[in-house]
Amino acid sequence: MKIVYLVPGLMPDEECRRREGMLRAWAAPGTQVDVAAVDEGPFSIESQYEEYLAVPATARLAVRKEREGYDAAIVGCAGDPGLEAIRELTRNMAVFGPGATSFLAAAMLGNRFAVLTPEGEMTQSNQLLAIRAGVRDKLAGSVSMGLPVLSMMDDRDATLKRMLEASRRAVAEMGADTLVIGCMTLAFLDFSGELEQATGLPVVNPASSTLKITEAMVACGLAPSKAAFPLPPKMADPQKPVDFTQLYGRRE
Amino acid sequence: MKIVYLVPGLMPDEECRRREGMLRAWAAPGTQVDVAAVDEGPFSIESQYEEYLAVPATARLAVRKEREGYDAAIVGCAGDPGLEAIRELTRNMAVFGPGATSFLAAAMLGNRFAVLTPEGEMTQSNQLLAIRAGVRDKLAGSVSMGLPVLSMMDDRDATLKRMLEASRRAVAEMGADTLVIGCMTLAFLDFSGELEQATGLPVVNPASSTLKITEAMVACGLAPSKAAFPLPPKMADPQKPVDFTQLYGRRE
Amino acid sequence: MKIVYLVPGLMPDEECRRREGMLRAWAAPGTQVDVAAVDEGPFSIESQYEEYLAVPATARLAVRKEREGYDAAIVGCAGDPGLEAIRELTRNMAVFGPGATSFLAAAMLGNRFAVLTPEGEMTQSNQLLAIRAGVRDKLAGSVSMGLPVLSMMDDRDATLKRMLEASRRAVAEMGADTLVIGCMTLAFLDFSGELEQATGLPVVNPASSTLKITEAMVACGLAPSKAAFPLPPKMADPQKPVDFTQLYGRRE
Amino acid sequence: MKIVYLVPGLMPDEECRRREGMLRAWAAPGTQVDVAAVDEGPFSIESQYEEYLAVPATARLAVRKEREGYDAAIVGCAGDPGLEAIRELTRNMAVFGPGATSFLAAAMLGNRFAVLTPEGEMTQSNQLLAIRAGVRDKLAGSVSMGLPVLSMMDDRDATLKRMLEASRRAVAEMGADTLVIGCMTLAFLDFSGELEQATGLPVVNPASSTLKITEAMVACGLAPSKAAFPLPPKMADPQKPVDFTQLYGRRE
Amino acid sequence: MKIVYLVPGLMPDEECRRREGMLRAWAAPGTQVDVAAVDEGPFSIESQYEEYLAVPATARLAVRKEREGYDAAIVGCAGDPGLEAIRELTRNMAVFGPGATSFLAAAMLGNRFAVLTPEGEMTQSNQLLAIRAGVRDKLAGSVSMGLPVLSMMDDRDATLKRMLEASRRAVAEMGADTLVIGCMTLAFLDFSGELEQATGLPVVNPASSTLKITEAMVACGLAPSKAAFPLPPKMADPQKPVDFTQLYGRRE
Amino acid sequence: MKIVYLVPGLMPDEECRRREGMLRAWAAPGTQVDVAAVDEGPFSIESQYEEYLAVPATARLAVRKEREGYDAAIVGCAGDPGLEAIRELTRNMAVFGPGATSFLAAAMLGNRFAVLTPEGEMTQSNQLLAIRAGVRDKLAGSVSMGLPVLSMMDDRDATLKRMLEASRRAVAEMGADTLVIGCMTLAFLDFSGELEQATGLPVVNPASSTLKITEAMVACGLAPSKAAFPLPPKMADPQKPVDFTQLYGRRE
Repeated sequence: MKIVYLVPGLMPDEECRRREGMLRAWAAPGTQVDVAAVDEGPFSIESQYEEYLAVPATARLAVRKEREGYDAAIVGCAGDPGLEAIRELTRNMAVFGPGATSFLAAAMLGNRFAVLTPEGEMTQSNQLLAIRAGVRDKLAGSVSMGLPVLSMMDDRDATLKRMLEASRRAVAEMGADTLVIGCMTLAFLDFSGELEQATGLPVVNPASSTLKITEAMVACGLAPSKAAFPLPPKMADPQKPVDFTQLYGRRE
Repeated sequence: MKIVYLVPGLMPDEECRRREGMLRAWAAPGTQVDVAAVDEGPFSIESQYEEYLAVPATARLAVRKEREGYDAAIVGCAGDPGLEAIRELTRNMAVFGPGATSFLAAAMLGNRFAVLTPEGEMTQSNQLLAIRAGVRDKLAGSVSMGLPVLSMMDDRDATLKRMLEASRRAVAEMGADTLVIGCMTLAFLDFSGELEQATGLPVVNPASSTLKITEAMVACGLAPSKAAFPLPPKMADPQKPVDFTQLYGRRE
Repeated sequence: MKIVYLVPGLMPDEECRRREGMLRAWAAPGTQVDVAAVDEGPFSIESQYEEYLAVPATARLAVRKEREGYDAAIVGCAGDPGLEAIRELTRNMAVFGPGATSFLAAAMLGNRFAVLTPEGEMTQSNQLLAIRAGVRDKLAGSVSMGLPVLSMMDDRDATLKRMLEASRRAVAEMGADTLVIGCMTLAFLDFSGELEQATGLPVVNPASSTLKITEAMVACGLAPSKAAFPLPPKMADPQKPVDFTQLYGRRE
Repeated sequence: MKIVYLVPGLMPDEECRRREGMLRAWAAPGTQVDVAAVDEGPFSIESQYEEYLAVPATARLAVRKEREGYDAAIVGCAGDPGLEAIRELTRNMAVFGPGATSFLAAAMLGNRFAVLTPEGEMTQSNQLLAIRAGVRDKLAGSVSMGLPVLSMMDDRDATLKRMLEASRRAVAEMGADTLVIGCMTLAFLDFSGELEQATGLPVVNPASSTLKITEAMVACGLAPSKAAFPLPPKMADPQKPVDFTQLYGRRE
Repeated sequence: MKIVYLVPGLMPDEECRRREGMLRAWAAPGTQVDVAAVDEGPFSIESQYEEYLAVPATARLAVRKEREGYDAAIVGCAGDPGLEAIRELTRNMAVFGPGATSFLAAAMLGNRFAVLTPEGEMTQSNQLLAIRAGVRDKLAGSVSMGLPVLSMMDDRDATLKRMLEASRRAVAEMGADTLVIGCMTLAFLDFSGELEQATGLPVVNPASSTLKITEAMVACGLAPSKAAFPLPPKMADPQKPVDFTQLYGRRE
Repeated sequence: MKIVYLVPGLMPDEECRRREGMLRAWAAPGTQVDVAAVDEGPFSIESQYEEYLAVPATARLAVRKEREGYDAAIVGCAGDPGLEAIRELTRNMAVFGPGATSFLAAAMLGNRFAVLTPEGEMTQSNQLLAIRAGVRDKLAGSVSMGLPVLSMMDDRDATLKRMLEASRRAVAEMGADTLVIGCMTLAFLDFSGELEQATGLPVVNPASSTLKITEAMVACGLAPSKAAFPLPPKMADPQKPVDFTQLYGRRE
C-alpha cells in the first residue's frame, strides 16, 4: 500500500523528512508512506485565506501523485484545505483530511470533543469542518493556546504548558470528554502521551490517527464516493474531456 | 458610493462591459459600479475545485480595489468562492457574496426557497452555502437545469424552458415558495420577470439583489464584522506586520 | 417608491413626526417615506401579550395603506407583531418587519449576533423571531439592558451606558461578533455610531437597515411570496370572496 | 377542579352547549368543565391573520375566568392563538392549548406524527406550533383534507372520507405512525374511533386529550412556569402596577 | 382502569407497598394501581449498564401483566429502561416511562427544563432520553446532586438541601424555567412542594405526573403506536408465530 | 495486538469459526483476532427487544475478555447493543460497535449514507444509532431488503438481488452517495464487492471496516473516554468497590 502525505505549504526539507520518519514509524509493515510538499504555498496556515491559498498547488500535487500510483493521499493540514476539491479531481485514489478524520475518530471515543488550536480565530473554521465531517453534534468547541504556529517548535516545554491549560479549559468550560489536536505542527511535536497522562482523556493526534485510518480504509477497499465528489463537469464530458490543468487560464 | 463587482474567472471584456451596463442600470443615483475581472482564473465555475481555483487571484484583486477606495465589493460568483478569506484581508471595505446574500434575501420573502443551478452536482455546495449564510432551515433544496454554464447564453429560449421545468420540480417536489437563481451567468441573462410570471413565486436574482442590498448596507455604514473575519495573525502582528502578498512563497 | 412605516402602538404625534424625519433623512432620493400610526393599540410593546394586542389595528392600517398605493410597509416594532398575518392580507405590497430583517442583515455581517433588548423577558420572543426569520443558527442570544422602554428617552447617557454594558456581556458571555438593536425606540435614539466605536463590532439599527433593505427589495421588484403567505381562504374563495373586515364579528 | 374551555371565535350558543356536553362526558368525576365563548372574534380560524384576531378578546376572557376561580383554561383552537400571551397575564390558573398539548401527547405515543388540517395552508403554522411545543423532531408533516372548516359539519360521511384519504397520505408519504386532529371542529365531530379503526394508528383528539391532560396537570399541582411566561413588565412593576386593561388605549 | 407500576430493580417489599400507597393516593376514583417488582434485577440504576441489566426481567413482567388484564404499565425508573422494547412486546397495553413522560410534561409548562439527577454521569442518558421523547430542544441540561441513590432516603434534610443547591445551579447556569426530578427514589420522597416553594418554578414529579398522564391517555383510549413499536418479526410471522420467551436461548 | 469479536447472540460454533476465519484473513500481520460467543442470548437480533436481551451476557463476556488481556473488543451486532454499558464496565480495553463505527466510516467517504437492513422496522434504531454515533446529519435513511436475517444465508443469489434493489431505492429516493451494510450476517456474506460494482458507490462492510478501524485506534493508543463512559458509581466507590457481578441480584 502506498500513501502520500501532502504538505500544502512551504516547509523546509528537513522538517518534511522528520515528519516522513515519524509517519513511517507509525505505518504498518507493508505500507509505504512518503511526504511530498508543494513547490509554492503559504508559509503556515492560520487563517481561512491561507487555507484557500494552499489549494491550487496541493490539488495539482495530488493529481500527480495519483498518476504515480499512490493508493491514498492525506492533505497535511488540520483544516483540510480543499479536501472536497481534491476528491473531485482524483479518480481512484482515496483522499483523506486529518481535520475531518480526527473529528470522526474523536466521535468514536466520546460524546463531546474539543479542538486545541494554536493561535488565531479558527473557531468558525472548526465548526464548518465539523459540519463537513458530519459530526457537528459532538463538537464541544475550540480552545486556542495563544501561540503562533511558527513559534511552537521553539520551546517544547512552554508549548506543552499552553496545551495543558487549554485542555483544562476545554474540560471545565465545555464539558469535553475527548481532545483533538487541531494543528499538524502540534501533531508532529507529538505531545499526545503527556496530554493523556495529565488529563486522563483520549487525545486524538491527527497525524497518527489519520495515517492509521487511511491504512484501514485502503485495506477495506474504500475510497470517497464519486457520487459525492464527482469530476468537474468539463472533465467528465465524454465528447471533449479536458485535463484538470485546462480548467484555468490567464488573460492574454 | 463606489462598488466593485469582481469577476473571479476569465471573462471576455465584452461580457464584463455588458454586465457592468446592467449593474449600472440597476444602481441608485450616486452609486458608481465598476466591473473588474481577474487576470487569471477558471473559465467557469461548476465544481468545488473551480471555486477554490478562483480564490487567490480574486483576493488579490479585492485588496487592490480596497486600496483604490471602493466602499464595497461583490464576489461575482453564486458560490461565494473565498468570501470569508476576502473578508479577512480587507480592513474597511464591505465584501458581500451573491450566494449568501441572495439566500438571505430569499429568507426575507418566504419559508422555503429552492436554488436553480445550471449543471453539475452543486447540491452540497449550496447546502454548505446556506449553512455559512446561516439560513439552512429555509433551504428547500437545489434543482439542476441540466445545462452547462458556458452554453446557457447560446439559446435563450431553451434556457428559459429548462428554468421553468426546474422551477416546477422545486415547487412540486420540495414545496418551495421562493426561487433563487443559483448562477451569475443565468442572473445576467435576467429571466426573473418571465419566471415570476410563469410560477407566481418571487425569484431572487443574485446580481440585482446583491447590488441593491450592498448599497443598503453601505448606506447604513455596515460592513462585515472584523471579530468574525479577523486579519490573518501574521498581518495583525503589531511587531512585524506583513503584507498579504508575503503570506505565500515559492520554493527556491 | 412609496414606503409606509406603520407604528403599531399609541405614539404621540410629535414622536411620529420625529421618526418620519429620521426615516426621510435615511431614504434614497426618489423614495417617499411616511409614518402612519394606529388609532388604538398598546402604549409600548414589552411582552408577548402586547405584541398580540397590536396586530388587529396594525393589519387594518396596512390594508388601507396598500389601497392608498404604497409599494411597501414596515411593521414598526422589533418583534414583528403579526408580520405573517399582514402578509396574508396584502396582495402586492411588500411587507417587512424590522425584527426578521435586522436579524437577516446581521447574518450577512458575521457568524453570531446578539440582540440588545430594553427590559423584560424577550429571550423566547427573539428565539422564535430568529426561527421565523430562518437564522436561528446565528443567534448568539439576547441581552437585556434592564431599562423600561418608556424611560429610555429620558436619560440618553444612562441609556448608552446600559447599552455598552449589555454589549460587553454579549461579547464576553455569548461570543457575539455582531450586535442588533432589539427595540425601535432604541433604534430611533440612534446610538449605533457610539456603540460601534466602543465595541468595534457592526451594530445593526433595525430602523435604518430595514428601510434601506426594503428600498432594495422594492427596487428589485421583490415582495413576500403569496405561496408562503396566502390570502385567508375566505378571502380567496372565487365564489363568494369576502373583505378582510368580514372575517371578524360581534355577538349580538 | 374547575376547568373552562375558551372558545376564541364566534360560535352559536347551541354548538357551545353541544361541545360542553361532550367535554363534561369526558371529564372525571369531580371535574366541572364549562364552555365560555368570546363576545367578539373571527367566525372561524383558517389563517394566521384569524389566529391573531382571536387573541385580544380571548385573553380578556381568560383573565376574567381566573378571577372567577377556575383552576385551568383551555384555549379552544388547534392553533393555540395567543397561548404564551394568555399565560403571561394569568397568575395561577393553568392555561393549555390543544395544539401544543396534542402534539406532546402524540410524542408520547410514537416517533413521527402527522397533523390533519381542514383547508388552507397551515403547514407553517403547524411547524411553528411544534417548535413552540418543543417537539419539532417528531412532526412528520401536515396534510390538508381540502375542506373549509365551516362546511365540515354539513356532511359527516364526506368529511370522514376526506380524513381517511389524508391519513393514508400521511402514512405513505410522510411515514407517520401517529395522527393528530389539527382542528377543533373536527375534534368535536369525534371521528377518532373510526380513524383508528381504519388506519390502525393512534389518533390524538385535541379536545379529549387536552381536557384529560389538563385534569392530570392540575391534579399534580402543575401550572405553566412564570419564569417562562412572566407578567408584562408594566403589570409587574411594584411601584405602580397596572391592570392588563390599561396596557391598551385609543387615540383621542 | 387498571394500571401497574413496574419496579425494574430489586426493592424491599415494604418500599414497594409504600410507593403503592402513594400512587393509590394520587390515583383518580375508579383507577386501580398496583406495584409489581421484578424477581431479579439491579439493586439501583445509576449507570447505563444497570439500565440495560433491568430490561429482560422487566419486559417479562410487563408481558405477564398485559395477560392479567392491565390497561397500562409504567416502567418505574426515570431512565425508561427498555421502554421501546417493552412497547414492542405488548399488544394493547399502554406502556409509558416516567422519563419521557415527565420530560414531555415539562415541555407543556415552559421553554427550558433541567433534570435533577442523584449521582453519577447521567448527562448523556438524559440527552438521549430527551431525543427519544422528542423534546431535545427544550432540555436545558442535567444537574447532579452528588448523592448516591441508595443513601438519599437516610437523611431527608440533607437530600432536600442538595436538591435546592442543584436547582439554583439549573436556573443560574442553564436558564431553566422548569424542573424535572430525574430519579424515582427522589420522586417518591416527594419534595416537589418544598422545591416549588423555594424556587418559584414548576417541579415535575415523574411518579405523580406519569401516573396522572397515563390515566389521561387510557381514558382517551390512546396507547403507543404499533407502527412505531411493532412486534418483533419472529412474533409477527403469521406462519409460525413464536412466544416472546422463545426469542432467547442458552447454548447446550 | 489482541482483538476479540463478541457474538452477542446464540450462534452455531461452525459459523463462529467461519467468521473468525474471515476476520483473521482481514487482520494485519501481528493482530490476533478471536471470536467469542455468549452462552445465552437471542437467536438473532431483529427488534429493539432482542437488542436489549443481548446485553447482559455480552457485557459479562466483555469484562472476562478484558481480564484475559485483550486490547480491544468489537460488539458483533450492527445495532451496537449495550455499547455504552460495556464501555462503562471496561477499564482499558477499547470497545467498538460496528454500527457506530461503520456509520462514522461512511461519513468519511461521502455526504449522505443509507443503511441496508434485512427485515423488520429498524428505522428508528438506525436513527438513534446515528445520533449516538454523532453523524445524524449524514444519515440519508434506512432501506429494508425484506428478508429475515435467518434466511439470508440460504439463497445467496436472492439475497444479492434484494440488496441491489434496496440500494437502488436508497440512491433514487434518498440521494444516498454511500452505502452501509446494516446487519452482521449480511456483512459476513461479504457482498460488498458485487454491490460496489453494481452501484458505483462505496459500500461499508461493518465487519471488515470495524476490524480495521479498531486496529487503527489501538495502534494509536486510543480507547473510549472514561469521562464519557465512567464506571458505574458503585464500582468506582473508593471505600467499598464492588465487582460488576454484584450490581445484580435475585429476590430470595
